[in-house]
Amino acid sequence: MVSSPHMRTVDLIGKKRDGGEHTRREIEHLVNGYVDGSIPDYQISAWLMAVCLSGMSAAETGSLTRAMIESGSTMDLSGLAGPLVDKHSTGGVGDKVSLILAPVAAACGLQVPMMSGRALGHTGGTLDKLESIHGYSTKMEAPEFRRIIGECGYAMTGQSEDIVPADRLLYALRDVTATVESVPLITASIMSKKFAEGAELLVFDVKTGSGAFMKSLDDSRALADSLIETGRSLGRGVVTVITRMDEPLGHMVGNYLEVEESMLCLAGEALRPGYEPPADLMEVTTRLTAWMLVAGGIVSSIAEGESRCREVIAEGAAYESFRRNVAAQGGDPDRLEAQVGGRRAPCSRVITAPRAGILTGVDAYTIGTAGVGLGVGRDRTDDDVLADVGFELARKVGSTVERGDTLCTVYGETDKATEEAVEAIATALRIDDDGPQRLPLIVEERSAL
Amino acid sequence: MVSSPHMRTVDLIGKKRDGGEHTRREIEHLVNGYVDGSIPDYQISAWLMAVCLSGMSAAETGSLTRAMIESGSTMDLSGLAGPLVDKHSTGGVGDKVSLILAPVAAACGLQVPMMSGRALGHTGGTLDKLESIHGYSTKMEAPEFRRIIGECGYAMTGQSEDIVPADRLLYALRDVTATVESVPLITASIMSKKFAEGAELLVFDVKTGSGAFMKSLDDSRALADSLIETGRSLGRGVVTVITRMDEPLGHMVGNYLEVEESMLCLAGEALRPGYEPPADLMEVTTRLTAWMLVAGGIVSSIAEGESRCREVIAEGAAYESFRRNVAAQGGDPDRLEAQVGGRRAPCSRVITAPRAGILTGVDAYTIGTAGVGLGVGRDRTDDDVLADVGFELARKVGSTVERGDTLCTVYGETDKATEEAVEAIATALRIDDDGPQRLPLIVEERSAL
Repeated sequence: MVSSPHMRTVDLIGKKRDGGEHTRREIEHLVNGYVDGSIPDYQISAWLMAVCLSGMSAAETGSLTRAMIESGSTMDLSGLAGPLVDKHSTGGVGDKVSLILAPVAAACGLQVPMMSGRALGHTGGTLDKLESIHGYSTKMEAPEFRRIIGECGYAMTGQSEDIVPADRLLYALRDVTATVESVPLITASIMSKKFAEGAELLVFDVKTGSGAFMKSLDDSRALADSLIETGRSLGRGVVTVITRMDEPLGHMVGNYLEVEESMLCLAGEALRPGYEPPADLMEVTTRLTAWMLVAGGIVSSIAEGESRCREVIAEGAAYESFRRNVAAQGGDPDRLEAQVGGRRAPCSRVITAPRAGILTGVDAYTIGTAGVGLGVGRDRTDDDVLADVGFELARKVGSTVERGDTLCTVYGETDKATEEAVEAIATALRIDDDGPQRLPLIVEERSAL
Repeated sequence: MVSSPHMRTVDLIGKKRDGGEHTRREIEHLVNGYVDGSIPDYQISAWLMAVCLSGMSAAETGSLTRAMIESGSTMDLSGLAGPLVDKHSTGGVGDKVSLILAPVAAACGLQVPMMSGRALGHTGGTLDKLESIHGYSTKMEAPEFRRIIGECGYAMTGQSEDIVPADRLLYALRDVTATVESVPLITASIMSKKFAEGAELLVFDVKTGSGAFMKSLDDSRALADSLIETGRSLGRGVVTVITRMDEPLGHMVGNYLEVEESMLCLAGEALRPGYEPPADLMEVTTRLTAWMLVAGGIVSSIAEGESRCREVIAEGAAYESFRRNVAAQGGDPDRLEAQVGGRRAPCSRVITAPRAGILTGVDAYTIGTAGVGLGVGRDRTDDDVLADVGFELARKVGSTVERGDTLCTVYGETDKATEEAVEAIATALRIDDDGPQRLPLIVEERSAL
């Protein structure tokens, strides 16, 4: 009879299958074994499915997050004035909040180390948007990252290869084994990256609705709760703001198009006389930025934070911070400004209202997936995206429209792709006689700072 | 936007994760893809875990069984007088039923193609027991298998490499991913092998209790139900008999020791004057054989079947069939007979009753695992077993014992192993003042012939 002195991976899988709670050492065994290759992927995928179906406690999720952070190096941001506050969104359509929030927060006095992701599926990616700026580079090492934050208050980069290798390995496996949709696994994936990247406090924008990863409010609440509880278990300050994502934020969906809209929101009349920023985009952006300012100790209330945001925009300080960042990361802010309103993919088609009424739906998911067809986003992580394609949504949900009013302009690289996108989003635009029933834009907020 | 014309494995895993029911084509995609290498093991293990936790319907289990059968070749038993009836046990301790049942059924006129397994964990294996007979070979091709069945009414072999390759692959993966304990997966594994091996009708001995694979009656019932329903979905006749497995069947636990006990049960007084076969072993064996005779159309009732079994034993026809089979498969029946009562491993230790009372427990699981230490069984499929070691249990549960009465003799290859086995089974033997509360030996029977 052999009695093994070692922890047996198969027993740990069985424990989770039966709904047991792992110890910290058990989770370290699994994560470290997977990263060092001593535990094969077929055991980890079975364990991931058991986690999907049996769940994890906040303590387990905290242990998983910690083990994932410790699987690689962490970003050295020493020397920057703390506390370092970052924002993370679970992903949406037309979600250019980071592009506006980072310079606004910087202009308010925060130092913002922002690490972003790429478009995947129907959701856009901040890195893809930024890279539509000619010359702009998001690839840099820690010293340059620190230097740029020091210079203009924020810097934008992607996830380094050395950071949280466990997350890259686990995510690739989850993606092909139908184990992506698990609240504790999502929580650990998000939190491990953010904390390894040097953030000390985190503000989460948990999207809810058709264009979000979590489509139901229950699921979004479960993720928000898990983020809060896991933050507590790790002793880190976390804020969650659940925001509605049933129509794209703002008017623009596309890579360069969203940069342009962000610049207009930051510069306003200075760039285009009479310009009015979209209310939904600005409400979400200022609320999230205000939470960052509260978390960072710059202001003492959300109301004060929101009013500071409006001030730095009105004064031009936020836009100035944006221009300095563009220059620091390799772009040319003057050239970029000159493109505003004119830089568009070669083919375009206008979609008009087939009847009069109230616009009750501009479905974010349908627009996001149609965007993949146009080249805004991608189905596979190694697909390329196109910079200048996308959608300009003329009207927001709730608008009264007349028959023939322009609802949306589609910009595509080819006539065929443009035509297909027009067809695809025909079902996304809904006109009724009565106004829509919707959640509020800011659904719920929880703070555990 | 890419829309795949193919079935996507990750979508099928997600469907099962969410409790969906697979179509036959979906199950074929998974099984065929795994066998041909186009689906990697990490996807199949995630799917297996989803099956463990979400279950499968009888129709799905039937489709899985069928797809597994079709993954390889099937045994050609044409030319044998049908119908071909086989018996399968879920495994127990001291379970030498096959060794007695096969010659009894043959002597009653059935042709029995018996394919057995090896010891694993605490349970014994018929092939290991048979191979303790010097010269006896269980390795043969279909023509020889058919010839021996024609000659002596039954033949004993192991699973061919060509039969159900999907089961070998899946079982190896389940073993290391904690996905063994799933009723539909167990059902498909058992049934696919038995039907691919040429059986037309199946009698299952579903063990329940500490020495069984399914320790609770609920679990055993769930497996019996699944076997019946899956048989129906495949249009095949199936009988399930749930039998108690809390103490070893009969008196002997060991490879050669169980062959000896089987010979004594078949030959009785002819081999050892005054010998009385153990009641529990004979009750289970005659009931299962009677079901085979009913399934095979030889008798019309269980009572008639049981009385036919007793007749062929009393007449010596069953023992004669056993001797012919031993000779046909390479053994020497005279030499084997001469070993009865004398062939034992070199070291022995007697365990006596520490007090007077009623023997209320001879725990099968403890004895089975102690047997692994002695060399009766194995922890890993590539470990060797020893022929002559084991346990001779002098008293059965329910016996009244005096202090100092012999309860068990342990036979080992070395003093150390023998001593360790004595220590290990000390806790298996329980003496109380009152008699034990137990299930009946034959707990439940279901027929879907």
